[in-house]
Amino acid sequence: MTAQAQTIGIAGAGAWGTALANAAAIAGNDVVLWMRSPEHAAALAQPRATDRCLPGVRLHARTRPTAALADLASAHAVLLVTPAQTTREMAAALGVVLPAATPLVLCAKGIERDSRAFLCDVVETVRPGAPIGVLSGPSFADDVARGLPTAVTLACRDAALAEALATALSGPTLRVYHRTDLRGVEIGGAAKNVLAIACGAVAGKGLGESAKAALIARGFAELLRFARAYGGEAETLMGLSGLGDLVLTCSSAHSRNFAFGQRLGQGMSVTDAAGGKLVEGAATASALVALAKAKNVDMPIAEAVEQVLSGAWSLDQAVDALMNRPVKSEH
Amino acid sequence: MTAQAQTIGIAGAGAWGTALANAAAIAGNDVVLWMRSPEHAAALAQPRATDRCLPGVRLHARTRPTAALADLASAHAVLLVTPAQTTREMAAALGVVLPAATPLVLCAKGIERDSRAFLCDVVETVRPGAPIGVLSGPSFADDVARGLPTAVTLACRDAALAEALATALSGPTLRVYHRTDLRGVEIGGAAKNVLAIACGAVAGKGLGESAKAALIARGFAELLRFARAYGGEAETLMGLSGLGDLVLTCSSAHSRNFAFGQRLGQGMSVTDAAGGKLVEGAATASALVALAKAKNVDMPIAEAVEQVLSGAWSLDQAVDALMNRPVKSEH
Repeated sequence: MTAQAQTIGIAGAGAWGTALANAAAIAGNDVVLWMRSPEHAAALAQPRATDRCLPGVRLHARTRPTAALADLASAHAVLLVTPAQTTREMAAALGVVLPAATPLVLCAKGIERDSRAFLCDVVETVRPGAPIGVLSGPSFADDVARGLPTAVTLACRDAALAEALATALSGPTLRVYHRTDLRGVEIGGAAKNVLAIACGAVAGKGLGESAKAALIARGFAELLRFARAYGGEAETLMGLSGLGDLVLTCSSAHSRNFAFGQRLGQGMSVTDAAGGKLVEGAATASALVALAKAKNVDMPIAEAVEQVLSGAWSLDQAVDALMNRPVKSEH
Repeated sequence: MTAQAQTIGIAGAGAWGTALANAAAIAGNDVVLWMRSPEHAAALAQPRATDRCLPGVRLHARTRPTAALADLASAHAVLLVTPAQTTREMAAALGVVLPAATPLVLCAKGIERDSRAFLCDVVETVRPGAPIGVLSGPSFADDVARGLPTAVTLACRDAALAEALATALSGPTLRVYHRTDLRGVEIGGAAKNVLAIACGAVAGKGLGESAKAALIARGFAELLRFARAYGGEAETLMGLSGLGDLVLTCSSAHSRNFAFGQRLGQGMSVTDAAGGKLVEGAATASALVALAKAKNVDMPIAEAVEQVLSGAWSLDQAVDALMNRPVKSEH
C-alpha cells in the first residue's frame, strides 16, 4: 500500500463505520461502505441523503454504499466496524469474498463472550495467515464526523503495513498513529468499556468528580496489569488507545457504556438500564474477569461490574466494596 | 504518631485548607486551622459560621480557627495549604514556631517560579532535616467538604511516618493512601496544572471530547517522562496523585487552571483570562519547561502553554502545533 488513492472497504455502517468511511474519503481514498440493509444502502446512495446514525452528516461523494459484501473484494484494506460479538461471523463471511492478502482491520472493541477469545485471535482462526490490524483510540463518531481533531492508533504486527494503513487513513482532522503492539491496542479498547460502566455508576450515584477521577486512575492500573499479563506493552496502554480511550469513555454520557452505568447508578435494573441496546462493556465483562482470574490479575473494578451485571451484588454493595477499602500503601 | 486522637495543624484556610481541616476533624483529630486574617478567624469561631471559601460548609466543632501561627506549635503534624509561590515564606515562618521534629506536609502544587525549585526542596532548604510530606490527589475541596468519597496520596521518605499520617487523616469519606516517593507525588501535582490549561483551551475552542482525551493521554506521557528524568517513580505517576489528579483537573471547569485555559480558548487575553486571580499552572509553566529542557525532556504540550502565556505564540498557533503533528509511530 502507498499513500496514493486507493480503495478502502468498510464493513458496517453504524455511526462509527459511517464516520470512518467519510474520514477515509476525505483522506483521499475511494471508499466502499457495506451494510446489511439494501434499503439503507439505497437511501444513502441518494446524493443528499443524511445518515440515520449521524444526524446531519452526509455521505462523502467518494463513499459508495452497498449491501453486497462482494463489493468489498476490490478494496486494498477492509475495516471491520460491526459489533464485537459478530466478529467471528463477519470475518468468516469476509474470508469468502476477500483475497487472502487483503488486510482486515478490527474497529470493534471487546472480547468474544463465549470463547473468551480476543477478537484478533477470532479473526486469525477464521482467516489464518491473512494480515490483521486493530484501530482504536479516543474517538466519538460524532467528533470524527464533524471534522473535529481526533487521534487514534492503528496496530499491525508488520510495522510497514501499520504505517501504510495509518498514512492512507490520516486526513486533515483524523490523525492515525501506528504501532506494532496488536494485543496492547486490542486490550485497551476491550477493557475500558467495562471500566466505563463503573465510572458511569459512580456518576449516576452522584459521588462526585473526585471519586470518578480516583476510579479512572485505579481502573487504568487494572488495565495495565491485565495487558502485561496478556502480552500487551505498557507504552501502548499509556497511549491513545489505552489511557486516551479510557478517559474519553469514562468522561461522557455520550459513551454508551458510561450512560448504561449511569442509569444503574440512578437505580435502574440491569435490563432497564440497557434498554434493549447493545452495551459492549456488559457483553465483555464476564470474559474479561475470567481471563483476569486465569492469570491471577487483580481487577477489583471489573469484578465489581461483573458482580452487578450477574446479579450477585447490588450496586450499593459494589460501590461500597470499591470505595471502602482499607488505607494502605498505594499499588 | 499513632491512630489515636492527636492535633493536626493546618496552615491556610482557603477552600482546600478548610476542607482538609474538617476532614481531619471528622477523622477524629483535634484541628488548629491557621489563617492570616484575625477577622476571618473570629468569624469562623462563631459556632454556626459558614466559610467564605466553601459556601454552606460549617467548620467542624473540633476545628479551632486562629490567626496566631504560634497556635500550630502543639500540633503533631502541620499541613501547609497556602499557595505554592508562598511556600518559602510560610515554611520559614513555621520553622520559627514549630519544633524541628514536627512533620510539615505540603498540600500546594507547583514549582517555585524564580528558583525553579521543587517545593519540597524549598522547604528542606528552609527547615533542614525536619520531616516532610506531600499530600496530593484528585480532590476538589467541594467534594471533600460535602463528604463525597475521595482518595488522595500522602508521601514521606519515611514509610512509617507516611503510614501514620495517612492513618491519622483518613476518615469515612476521605481515604489517604501512602507512598515513599515524595518526588513523584510532588511532580504529578505541579505538572498537571500546566497540562490542564492546554485541555481547557481545547475545550474552550470547542474542539470536542475526543481531542481533549487525546491531549490528556499525550499530557500523561509528558508527565511520566518528566518524572522519570527527575527521579519520580512511574507507578506513582500512574496513581491517584499523577493520573487521577490529571484527569480530574483536565475534566472540569471546577478546576481553576482548566477554566483559565477555557477562557483563553474562547479568545480572551492571558490577563483577562486570569482575571486577577492566582492560576497555579500559569505560575509553574515556565519553571516546568525550563526544568524539562535542562534534562532534554520532550514536553510539547507544556511548551505550547508556556509559549502562549509568554506571548510568543497565539492560541491558534499553539493548537495547530499540537494538533497537526505528522503521522508517526506513537511514542
